[in-house]
Amino acid sequence: MSMTKQSNVIKGWRGVPFSDVSISDAFWRPRLETLKNVTIGVCLDQCEKTNRIANFALAGGLIEGKYEGMYYNDSDVYKVLEGAAYSLMTDRDPKLEAEIDRIIGLIEAAQESDGYLSTYYTVEAPDQKWTDMEKHEMYNGGHLIEAAVAYYQATGKRQLLDVACRLADHYDSIFGPGKRHWAEGHEEIELALVKLFGATGEERYWKLALWLLEERGHGHGVGAIWDKEDWGPAYCQDDVPVRDIREVKGHAVRAMYLYTAMADVVLASGDPAYMEALDRVWAHTVERNMYLTGGIGPSVHNEGFTHDYDLPNESAYCETCAAIAMAFWNQRMNLLHGDGKYADIVERELFNGALSGISLSGDRFFYVNPLASKGEHHRVEWFHTSCCPTNLARFLPSIGQYVYARSADGIAVNQYLSSETKVELPGGGSVQIAQSTAYPWDGRVEIRLSPDQADEFALRLRLPGWCRSYRILAQGEPVTGAEALAENGYLVLKRHWSKGDTVELALDMPVAAVRSREEVEANRGRIAFQRGPVVYCMEQVGNEGLSYDGFAVKATEPFVAEYTGDQLGGVTILRGRTEAGLPLELIPYYAWDNRDAGFMQVWVREAEDRGLYR
Amino acid sequence: MSMTKQSNVIKGWRGVPFSDVSISDAFWRPRLETLKNVTIGVCLDQCEKTNRIANFALAGGLIEGKYEGMYYNDSDVYKVLEGAAYSLMTDRDPKLEAEIDRIIGLIEAAQESDGYLSTYYTVEAPDQKWTDMEKHEMYNGGHLIEAAVAYYQATGKRQLLDVACRLADHYDSIFGPGKRHWAEGHEEIELALVKLFGATGEERYWKLALWLLEERGHGHGVGAIWDKEDWGPAYCQDDVPVRDIREVKGHAVRAMYLYTAMADVVLASGDPAYMEALDRVWAHTVERNMYLTGGIGPSVHNEGFTHDYDLPNESAYCETCAAIAMAFWNQRMNLLHGDGKYADIVERELFNGALSGISLSGDRFFYVNPLASKGEHHRVEWFHTSCCPTNLARFLPSIGQYVYARSADGIAVNQYLSSETKVELPGGGSVQIAQSTAYPWDGRVEIRLSPDQADEFALRLRLPGWCRSYRILAQGEPVTGAEALAENGYLVLKRHWSKGDTVELALDMPVAAVRSREEVEANRGRIAFQRGPVVYCMEQVGNEGLSYDGFAVKATEPFVAEYTGDQLGGVTILRGRTEAGLPLELIPYYAWDNRDAGFMQVWVREAEDRGLYR
Repeated sequence: MSMTKQSNVIKGWRGVPFSDVSISDAFWRPRLETLKNVTIGVCLDQCEKTNRIANFALAGGLIEGKYEGMYYNDSDVYKVLEGAAYSLMTDRDPKLEAEIDRIIGLIEAAQESDGYLSTYYTVEAPDQKWTDMEKHEMYNGGHLIEAAVAYYQATGKRQLLDVACRLADHYDSIFGPGKRHWAEGHEEIELALVKLFGATGEERYWKLALWLLEERGHGHGVGAIWDKEDWGPAYCQDDVPVRDIREVKGHAVRAMYLYTAMADVVLASGDPAYMEALDRVWAHTVERNMYLTGGIGPSVHNEGFTHDYDLPNESAYCETCAAIAMAFWNQRMNLLHGDGKYADIVERELFNGALSGISLSGDRFFYVNPLASKGEHHRVEWFHTSCCPTNLARFLPSIGQYVYARSADGIAVNQYLSSETKVELPGGGSVQIAQSTAYPWDGRVEIRLSPDQADEFALRLRLPGWCRSYRILAQGEPVTGAEALAENGYLVLKRHWSKGDTVELALDMPVAAVRSREEVEANRGRIAFQRGPVVYCMEQVGNEGLSYDGFAVKATEPFVAEYTGDQLGGVTILRGRTEAGLPLELIPYYAWDNRDAGFMQVWVREAEDRGLYR
Repeated sequence: MSMTKQSNVIKGWRGVPFSDVSISDAFWRPRLETLKNVTIGVCLDQCEKTNRIANFALAGGLIEGKYEGMYYNDSDVYKVLEGAAYSLMTDRDPKLEAEIDRIIGLIEAAQESDGYLSTYYTVEAPDQKWTDMEKHEMYNGGHLIEAAVAYYQATGKRQLLDVACRLADHYDSIFGPGKRHWAEGHEEIELALVKLFGATGEERYWKLALWLLEERGHGHGVGAIWDKEDWGPAYCQDDVPVRDIREVKGHAVRAMYLYTAMADVVLASGDPAYMEALDRVWAHTVERNMYLTGGIGPSVHNEGFTHDYDLPNESAYCETCAAIAMAFWNQRMNLLHGDGKYADIVERELFNGALSGISLSGDRFFYVNPLASKGEHHRVEWFHTSCCPTNLARFLPSIGQYVYARSADGIAVNQYLSSETKVELPGGGSVQIAQSTAYPWDGRVEIRLSPDQADEFALRLRLPGWCRSYRILAQGEPVTGAEALAENGYLVLKRHWSKGDTVELALDMPVAAVRSREEVEANRGRIAFQRGPVVYCMEQVGNEGLSYDGFAVKATEPFVAEYTGDQLGGVTILRGRTEAGLPLELIPYYAWDNRDAGFMQVWVREAEDRGLYR
């Protein structure tokens, strides 16, 4: 069976690769520049300084010494390479490319003759390979594959892709039906193998991914982690067969990578049991275990989930990687179901949970993203386990992929940011689509369509879940009838479109006071403020008159919403008053701790309001 | 003591008379035209047809016959005259004026030689005058006075004013300290006497008003109503001395007219006990006994109040007159306290509770304004007791008085509608203020100030209670600091203003789902929708697929908000879906029952929402 064919079994939507999307957005373009000019360099430097790169040379026998760092450190190098590759797709940069090529040489040297590649084992414990499923051998391999595919697509160079294929073939030679069992402790290889199939057309890669998924939950797990009394197999999603998954459990990033891979595979397998498991666990994650910021995994203990509605604010773990992985997963869910509610989650991560992980300067990071802090959380340059900076390094330059999708009957606009792309139409031919907006500070979006030739197709515009009212014009005229009403989270304009046709969507974007469900104990008696997709917080800077949690705010408090280009990289700041009449300044959550260190709160105490209506 | 001086004891705000306010507003101007061209004529015709006018001729001995109708029917004629006078202030109309003069001749003829005037008693029971305080003798007199003052101000003609003064002097000769007691069953005379003081400068008029207020609650009440077992003196606010009032009780219109008069008098007396009583009863009214529409008085039984939070929707009485009277009272409260929350209530009545009383055509009326109907409520041409049409006839042409106010340090903009006025400044000189807006359909308001000469003064802009976020520019620049934050419901721009200075206020005006306090049993599990100051409802027309209360809506339902100039006199219609996915159309509450008769609901069942945050 072929993935492309099978995908029609589900919904037939396909992503538009970010390499086809040109971003001119006032919010994102400067961030992409910073990512390329600062973050990638910072990450490469750190990989160099911490011997993450040297470990490859060591494994390849090019230098002598001792392995340094954690057994999963290879993955950081791969992730920076992947991010660099994405950047190179839009901006060629010979110097950066040369540096990547140098590192690729080291990686290739580190690969053993049978294809094996994981420098920790090669250097430190070559006789203990494949004895502990927690040791990230395939996790490392998965990131290598993702980097290889990206670099191949960016440059056409096969060197790293060949390394990746040899590695995948090596896995395929050892593991699989009738061969050895394997339930990798940290998922990642599965989604990577699907990508490798996409790049090479080799069906065996996605089938190996499917086999690896199917291995889980059958007691094959071996390693220290499986024996940990309070974690056990659930920590790495090895407690039940994947098709029987009902609840999100264990390590948050691992769970998200697993679901991402399952979503990738169901596109090919069309297996309804997978789809049902994903739908169940999505609802369980989003309706009971997700922070307002899109953050997931409340506990530092297992870097993951605990029990339903356990969403403490100060101790919220909310690993940056988990927020990024939520975007990965929800992007796939959107394509599977053609439903905007998944793209809503991607948006939530883009403007909150994921973006908070990186400083405005691009060289300071959060691993943990709490929703309240007494002042003890600060952005730092790097971490001993530094998955988050390197995940940001590859996530941000690829955001273009979340913007558009192709449906069986046309195109969908999933994210609002000024950009252009060209998309093939279902009836043949293609359409140029240009989007212009000041999102997320303004809810107006202008879209201009230029099909090769006038054609009928559906233009879907996501109606964000936060939006309560909007206006929609096509060719300057109000859209009437059912076209103006949301269907699965989209306004669906099925029309005969001609060159230069315009659509204007104006999403009302007021400040909204948000409450949690009562079940969330941490937020009882509290409210948070959101404007459009942006969750706000108060931090010490700008609120010198207030003390941590020492104030309350009415849900009906009016805020002056002022866009200022010269603060925090250009933000809309909200200013209002506490119940006691003291000035209160709110800034976007993602932008906190970019000035002096201090306390921060997303959920503030709600002051009683004496009105009859609210 | 002088009223003008004493007013400074409180806050020093003064209204700007509507005769000084020129209204060019797209929403209100056509309504004022309809009022003048249709409603006044309709009301005069009805007064003629029902012998309300003939009763005066009868009492004056100009014709022979029998008194017809209720003993308070004189008041309807006076109220139409008052409304006609207001219309004449802005548009002279010799034909209308001649007709009014003719009626005034009849009124004068009906006045007895000692000044007494109430045609029912003169014709039917001349020997029973002043024996039943429920018989509206002074209520009629109060409306005569209001009409007389209005007509004098509009035309300079004293004929009716002289009748009014003779009547007031007659009251003064019979009632007062050391004379007869009187607790008028239906308040109105008190506020009218204060007006008469304003027009004539005769202090004895407002002192008589004060005496009448002080008469209440001391067991002086005499008449059938006082003996009604389940009503008693509370029905007409004669249960406690006015300075001891704690809770709103009894007949809604009477209570509001009382509080209006108390507010008028406290401006002169400066009596803190009055102020405290008003503050208490205001909170009790607004926080426990007011419908979302601003309607008050849930019960048909007493045309008034029952118990706290008793706000049934289908059986809501909500007399149009009571909504109008709430505007009267809250206008005074605003001037007393200089707080925007009272102007918020005026706004609520203007766009909802009061406005719903009149059809778009200006010739059909609601006496009762329920918040839900199975289809049995319809607008009609006239009522046996027709206080509401005639109250609308005088309320609407005077709305200009609610727009601006003068504070001790400058001017306040209380209502947003395109208009111009010239206001004296505290420091001498005056300022021309021009307001331009598409309110209530759009939250942007542009204000242009033209002081005679550059001067420092405070410009207060009301920040409506429904508003959650806004932007404010002065001279094109964002207003920063405390000036941009609300203080007692106003943004206060204390600046040096020069000719042509502009201020732009942009109030975010999304659709908002509103909930009641839990105590309101009728609305448990229900939500209503509001956009800006306009409360919405669904009615059968436009919702043919739905049945009365047979659907539910999510609080997070998005609505397309489309302004349409050719429906319902130009409205923003909201279109969304019910929980079951059926189309749902909401229209402004005030505009219901202007098409085919059918069911209507403001509060609709809330559909469960599975999200974690809302």
